Amino acid sequence: MNILNRFQNLVSDEILAVETLMRQQAEGFNIDLQAALDHLISSGGKRIRPNITLLVGRMLNGDMERLITLSAAIELLHTATLVHDDLIDGSLLRRGIPTLNSKWTPAATVLTGDFMFAKAAKLAAETNSVPVMKLFANTLGIIVNGEIVQMFSSHCQSDTDLYYKRIYSKTASLFETSTTAAAIICEANRTQKEYLRQFGYELGIAFQIIDDVLDFTSNQDKLGKPVGGDLRLGLITLPAILYFEQYKDDILTKEFFQHDCNPPIEILEKLILNIRNSSAIKNSFDKANSHIEFCLKALHHLPIGIERDALEELACFVTQRNI
Amino acid sequence: MNILNRFQNLVSDEILAVETLMRQQAEGFNIDLQAALDHLISSGGKRIRPNITLLVGRMLNGDMERLITLSAAIELLHTATLVHDDLIDGSLLRRGIPTLNSKWTPAATVLTGDFMFAKAAKLAAETNSVPVMKLFANTLGIIVNGEIVQMFSSHCQSDTDLYYKRIYSKTASLFETSTTAAAIICEANRTQKEYLRQFGYELGIAFQIIDDVLDFTSNQDKLGKPVGGDLRLGLITLPAILYFEQYKDDILTKEFFQHDCNPPIEILEKLILNIRNSSAIKNSFDKANSHIEFCLKALHHLPIGIERDALEELACFVTQRNI
Repeated sequence: MNILNRFQNLVSDEILAVETLMRQQAEGFNIDLQAALDHLISSGGKRIRPNITLLVGRMLNGDMERLITLSAAIELLHTATLVHDDLIDGSLLRRGIPTLNSKWTPAATVLTGDFMFAKAAKLAAETNSVPVMKLFANTLGIIVNGEIVQMFSSHCQSDTDLYYKRIYSKTASLFETSTTAAAIICEANRTQKEYLRQFGYELGIAFQIIDDVLDFTSNQDKLGKPVGGDLRLGLITLPAILYFEQYKDDILTKEFFQHDCNPPIEILEKLILNIRNSSAIKNSFDKANSHIEFCLKALHHLPIGIERDALEELACFVTQRNI
Repeated sequence: MNILNRFQNLVSDEILAVETLMRQQAEGFNIDLQAALDHLISSGGKRIRPNITLLVGRMLNGDMERLITLSAAIELLHTATLVHDDLIDGSLLRRGIPTLNSKWTPAATVLTGDFMFAKAAKLAAETNSVPVMKLFANTLGIIVNGEIVQMFSSHCQSDTDLYYKRIYSKTASLFETSTTAAAIICEANRTQKEYLRQFGYELGIAFQIIDDVLDFTSNQDKLGKPVGGDLRLGLITLPAILYFEQYKDDILTKEFFQHDCNPPIEILEKLILNIRNSSAIKNSFDKANSHIEFCLKALHHLPIGIERDALEELACFVTQRNI
């Protein structure tokens, strides 16, 4: 059993139930909408958020039916934000699979995302927990505000604080909600809830840092888009921030900022290659690993057992994955 | 005191509180987002849905703070759907005021709508009622599905059943939720809740029929867009359905359908003028009035008092308004 399988196998039946529940949300509605939801769910990722929620829930002996409902709500919310993101960014592929907006009109894509928000909210309400509902709605607000800030703020900023704020909005907030909401459903005590919040937060931060590293170190086939995609959009992530700090007097660095983060393509390509081969990659990994350490520390305050072992492996997987 | 003032005056302080609460949702978030929300709230309509919720709530001696929260949730949800609608339809004006999409990029408009959905869900959760949350999420699903059905269904259908389904999704569903959710907050008994649901449903249907009549009988200044706007988009509303039934062998009718509801502009202009001057207008009014009668009948089963009188006047106002 490899690292990947361990934490997934433990809740694999529940993950299937989560996917079924997600698909069921379009039942009885428009047939094109059903097809869209099916496409999105079939092409959909590692299910890392539901895995976390379900493992935390099992660790705390929670009601699995409510935890499955919660997990479906979280994954549907996540998928809905990706639908609108891809539309806004004009992305044609995600994980190598055509995005909804590459096949549908912008109007249909906006409405499909809206429908998924509605169904995510419905599922969150079906956990029958008002605190979960509040957490859920707040998290959506944080995610969307993060995107708006990114859209309106002057681009081309190499700033660690801004970067951390952005990845909190984008990723860590929903990881935090995945663990905290599970803790609420399981009626965990205050201390456990706080450790679980920390676990989710640190894991989410590490996850996004690694995503940003992979954007430089992976290849086009695995990414489903060109290497260095963020930098090509003028978006400066941790590997680039660390590189620019180290090579601030370098000619490429200077040219990049002189062109307001939108230099001629040959400069961009060289820069991406340089970042890829620089110590900024290892330094970013080290940052991610330090967040994983915090994450594991928080985990050690939670009940011993196979679920906690699986969550530990899941956390380690986050920095070891290559996609 | 005129008809308009009576039902508005009774809860005018609460309506101000609703608007303040709506504006507060952007506090602490991105400054452009605050400006957008301010613009949307300042340019925002008759507040008929919060008026209904607040009057129902007062009639049943409900907790006004929770009812204000609920009303803000409903009005924010309504405004969010309009933001995405205007973007999808490419509308540049609403009530004569520039729409958000006329000033912002599609991306910023999508995200502002999403933010408002998030905040509407947050406010709904703050009513601390799980049934209200469920109702709320379901209603958003119904509204969005209605738009998706309209987008994917073959246009150019003159069909009363389809029309009623469409106006239920578009308008009556949220009117129904405005009364039903207030009933839930006030812990109304089952019978009262059912009469209030009926009141909201019938009022919403009548409201949308009148909206569709005004689209033919009003003028460009009041509408903020050309007369006959729906028909210009190939969308057949009740006045047109009734006209086409009566004049099915008319040359204009035939030309309209032969051109798949997209005839040369001179035919369209003549048709709009003909519908405007035909008995289809009075017949549509009669239909709306029959729904108002059902609405008033339901109301008579509810507690006597100034709030019930005000709701009666509000219902009558719906068919008497000219905008």
